[in-house]
Amino acid sequence: MKMAAIAFGHFDDSFSLGSIKAYIAEFISTLLFVFAGVGSAIAYGKLTSDAAVDPAGLVAVAICHAFALFVAVSVGANISGGHVNPAVTFGLALGGQITILTGIFYWIAQLLGSIVACFLLKFVTGGLRIPTHNVAASVGAFEGVVTEIIITFALVYTVYATASDPKKGSLGTIASIAIGFIVGANILAAGPFSGGSMNPARSFGPAVVSGDFHANWVYWVGPLIGACLAALIYGNVFLSQSEQNFKGLFESLILEGSEGKEKV
Amino acid sequence: MKMAAIAFGHFDDSFSLGSIKAYIAEFISTLLFVFAGVGSAIAYGKLTSDAAVDPAGLVAVAICHAFALFVAVSVGANISGGHVNPAVTFGLALGGQITILTGIFYWIAQLLGSIVACFLLKFVTGGLRIPTHNVAASVGAFEGVVTEIIITFALVYTVYATASDPKKGSLGTIASIAIGFIVGANILAAGPFSGGSMNPARSFGPAVVSGDFHANWVYWVGPLIGACLAALIYGNVFLSQSEQNFKGLFESLILEGSEGKEKV
Amino acid sequence: MKMAAIAFGHFDDSFSLGSIKAYIAEFISTLLFVFAGVGSAIAYGKLTSDAAVDPAGLVAVAICHAFALFVAVSVGANISGGHVNPAVTFGLALGGQITILTGIFYWIAQLLGSIVACFLLKFVTGGLRIPTHNVAASVGAFEGVVTEIIITFALVYTVYATASDPKKGSLGTIASIAIGFIVGANILAAGPFSGGSMNPARSFGPAVVSGDFHANWVYWVGPLIGACLAALIYGNVFLSQSEQNFKGLFESLILEGSEGKEKV
Amino acid sequence: MKMAAIAFGHFDDSFSLGSIKAYIAEFISTLLFVFAGVGSAIAYGKLTSDAAVDPAGLVAVAICHAFALFVAVSVGANISGGHVNPAVTFGLALGGQITILTGIFYWIAQLLGSIVACFLLKFVTGGLRIPTHNVAASVGAFEGVVTEIIITFALVYTVYATASDPKKGSLGTIASIAIGFIVGANILAAGPFSGGSMNPARSFGPAVVSGDFHANWVYWVGPLIGACLAALIYGNVFLSQSEQNFKGLFESLILEGSEGKEKV
Repeated sequence: MKMAAIAFGHFDDSFSLGSIKAYIAEFISTLLFVFAGVGSAIAYGKLTSDAAVDPAGLVAVAICHAFALFVAVSVGANISGGHVNPAVTFGLALGGQITILTGIFYWIAQLLGSIVACFLLKFVTGGLRIPTHNVAASVGAFEGVVTEIIITFALVYTVYATASDPKKGSLGTIASIAIGFIVGANILAAGPFSGGSMNPARSFGPAVVSGDFHANWVYWVGPLIGACLAALIYGNVFLSQSEQNFKGLFESLILEGSEGKEKV
Repeated sequence: MKMAAIAFGHFDDSFSLGSIKAYIAEFISTLLFVFAGVGSAIAYGKLTSDAAVDPAGLVAVAICHAFALFVAVSVGANISGGHVNPAVTFGLALGGQITILTGIFYWIAQLLGSIVACFLLKFVTGGLRIPTHNVAASVGAFEGVVTEIIITFALVYTVYATASDPKKGSLGTIASIAIGFIVGANILAAGPFSGGSMNPARSFGPAVVSGDFHANWVYWVGPLIGACLAALIYGNVFLSQSEQNFKGLFESLILEGSEGKEKV
Repeated sequence: MKMAAIAFGHFDDSFSLGSIKAYIAEFISTLLFVFAGVGSAIAYGKLTSDAAVDPAGLVAVAICHAFALFVAVSVGANISGGHVNPAVTFGLALGGQITILTGIFYWIAQLLGSIVACFLLKFVTGGLRIPTHNVAASVGAFEGVVTEIIITFALVYTVYATASDPKKGSLGTIASIAIGFIVGANILAAGPFSGGSMNPARSFGPAVVSGDFHANWVYWVGPLIGACLAALIYGNVFLSQSEQNFKGLFESLILEGSEGKEKV
Repeated sequence: MKMAAIAFGHFDDSFSLGSIKAYIAEFISTLLFVFAGVGSAIAYGKLTSDAAVDPAGLVAVAICHAFALFVAVSVGANISGGHVNPAVTFGLALGGQITILTGIFYWIAQLLGSIVACFLLKFVTGGLRIPTHNVAASVGAFEGVVTEIIITFALVYTVYATASDPKKGSLGTIASIAIGFIVGANILAAGPFSGGSMNPARSFGPAVVSGDFHANWVYWVGPLIGACLAALIYGNVFLSQSEQNFKGLFESLILEGSEGKEKV
């Protein structure tokens, strides 16, 4: 185990056989997660002739995201670490657990998975509109960003505590359940306000397929800041010097990178 | 452990005591799963005087399938591998994890379990109609088949990653939960479009008891193609040569078979 | 480990310190399970001014029973085996895993726990009616009994496969989740027909406190037959001679009993 | 392991690095739990224009609390023991598992976490009202206190049996799920009567931010009595002399304290 901190990485590491398998795993996991998650939102519209979401619909969407993310993380866990989310990849890169270069390929795989999922949904639903994340009219974009910061903080903090911390012990067995269920809980709270994304890929695919990018920045800025805060706080407070891989956030960016562990 | 690839199998292996126990286990698990799952759809009709499904009803049906499949897979896991689904058996036969001959007996046990479950439901509900899977009027049969391909791919990919992969590690403890919950998530997304079957046995029993087979082919074609894709991709990309048991899909069909492991 | 089969047991075994702790654990677990489960049915009536149950209400009641039973079984698991149900105790007595005498004290503890829970609910709800299990008007008592047989079979079969079978392996970790969730799934299916009890204690407490025993026999006959079938089938088909503890159901009743294991 | 019983503790133990990390972990876990839990109640009001809670809404709120508490306990488990609740801390202090002094700092961290969560909710929802716990008009405050006693008893008894008992075995793996889900089940039962708090911190933050303390005493008195009963009964009945750490409840208060284990 290396004391990497944020590491840029070498090209040959990012094109090893293991890395390419990891990108395929991220693509498939994100595709399956977004297909189910966005699909549940379309299903609600179909069943209610596009009524405004009601509590039963919010339960349906939240449970679908919770169950699907739990599974998507599980099936990727041993191959790519099961990030399924650019914010998680970003948070783990800040902790030196994946190199920036490999992380960029993770992002590409995740975004492609989400886009393909949304095109498939467009086809199999007979061309129905793909719903995009939006901040509720009653609150402003800034409030939406803050909401996404808080709930993504919860998600990435959960990833660190249950999956990434070497001291996790038997928590590791239920890590993917915890990761899925915190997203379900946060959708039940934040859904009617920011939409409850916590995941730039989950928001990006629908934006591409519907061509509606006007609020998409919220779901990059909020989740990435939330992931950054979780990585900094968990790493500096709860990981020991040899575990934490932090040298100072920006300082390390200019160091010569070395290969990190892609595994969560 | 043998490098079997698709194997036809020997008759005496398929009639060993262990194999017969496995068929009984598949029969019982599928009976209990279908009784609960189809029962939840009948219950919705009973509570709402056969109203069109609404989001609360979709949640009820999805959670019932998720919970019941999780349990049906768990109780069979140590005896038959807990397939409870001809598509899963097919996907594992393609990976050489069960012989074709034993797999055929699994199919028979699963189909019989589903049929018996539906006759029991007919009786205990005082003769209510047994609802069959259908593709929504707003989409075509082809869209329905594609939907079933995608969501069954997710299911069988989950079976491979959490239960069948020798590298699964502690994921094995929660494999049956993941298998049940991906089905729950996919019903929340696909329910209003293809019905969200992912399982020819789940669709076949109601067709037999109601005598309505007009859409039943969709729930054979879609799930079997999806299972095939999952077996090919997971096996060729994520399993090593010694784990994957693939020699080339059709080539191996003409090889002399040898006994596989029936266990997931 | 003894080859006990059904054993009557000795009085001094049933009054050992360990046995008395087990009775207290069963009393508390059943009290907490029934308080939550029956409480959720009362809560539905309160929120809807006693409307007929709708799908959202069925989901609420089913999830409450699933979650509460999972926990009630878990907290008792290491002390009493976490039966929380006279039908489970009966099914395990038939398999020789608990003596008849100790089982009778389990029943008394479970029934008292349920009665106390219902009196507490009567008090804390300001005297609201305690709802009892009933068979739906559209089906007859016999259909109700058959429904309870099938769904209790599923429950006790799950207890055997995940908790009681010495070959259970890592399934033991999630046994209590499986036991809770099969009850949740079965309520979603059977709730509008037989009520979905699977548990004589769950039905008995409300009958005592409301004074309405007219349908209570259904929830003794059905669950006990279902438990008996599960014990016979699981024991004779899936347990080896040394594991199964069966000698022939009625024959063994006249044998001199010996102390069994109270643990699931 | 020491035979501590209730111990006041030394100041230097409560200011060790490990203790301060524990306070931060409790602050963050409680913040994230209350943000999701109270957020789900606000979300219901937002979706329904502040309608009275209906069964779908009760399901949404209960599932959100169950999922969020499961995760909040998990992420704190290895650092602070994952109490996330002053009643749990109190119940464990009575069993000598945490000193009174350290417990007081836990309380402060939990209450601060809840208050900050509610201020954040006030901000991100554009200033919506923060709903407080109240006893239903149809029952009196005494009934509300008794309800909270019973359901908090269930929660703290679960903490003891699954997380704190040295004999817990593999239950420890699913302890945090059990702790979250008993709260979900109890909200489905008690929500329409006492509100289903079981947690003084969960009730205190909304009271502070809304300025409405008139019913807040109910959510201190009930949960603390329930936790006390659970600690006494579980400790005296199910823990052996060397495990239980009880010498007599009040007697031990005057003994010289010694450092306890902060871990659940």
